[in-house]
Amino acid sequence: MPNIYEIPSDINQTEKFEQLETGHNILIERIISTGQTTPEGEWYDQDVDEWVILLQGEAKIVYEDRTAVELKSGDYLMLLAHQKHRVEYTSIEPPCIWLAVHGQLRSL
Amino acid sequence: MPNIYEIPSDINQTEKFEQLETGHNILIERIISTGQTTPEGEWYDQDVDEWVILLQGEAKIVYEDRTAVELKSGDYLMLLAHQKHRVEYTSIEPPCIWLAVHGQLRSL
Repeated sequence: MPNIYEIPSDINQTEKFEQLETGHNILIERIISTGQTTPEGEWYDQDVDEWVILLQGEAKIVYEDRTAVELKSGDYLMLLAHQKHRVEYTSIEPPCIWLAVHGQLRSL
Repeated sequence: MPNIYEIPSDINQTEKFEQLETGHNILIERIISTGQTTPEGEWYDQDVDEWVILLQGEAKIVYEDRTAVELKSGDYLMLLAHQKHRVEYTSIEPPCIWLAVHGQLRSL
């Protein structure tokens, strides 16, 4: 049985994106971050909604209006499509383990 | 910021299903179980796929062929549409906290 907390040992250099399920307009993904952040001046600007939960580690997300949210284990939030955001901090020890669901997550 | 591990104090009698996001053919749900199981002789037989991760507690799921899987924190699995299954055990202390994603999760 796969376990979300079991992570490969060679994770130190790059952020690791792992597709767990890819369905009809939906992606369930595990992301492992070890200190990586969004490059200065860049923003995530995604075409679909992303629901994300931080399952291990600590992280900080900043929105375009400079609102910042600090996440600890178990915190979750919705990043709506085209809601620009940056990841400003991810802990190295322990590594951040994120679970993300991408899709049209709000009924229109 | 909502946290998946923060659970209400009045959870002892019934299983608690909480819709976190309901989108286009997708549902993200938190389930809190405290000893509840699928009634004897009954099976879950769902019309859509369910990806589920146990985030706290211990549980046991049994399939129609009597294969059993025991889950601990972090274990995840896919319950395909119409893959009959029963929940045979959920821990009371600590309560089981499940995160489930319902939808068409495999590309056809």
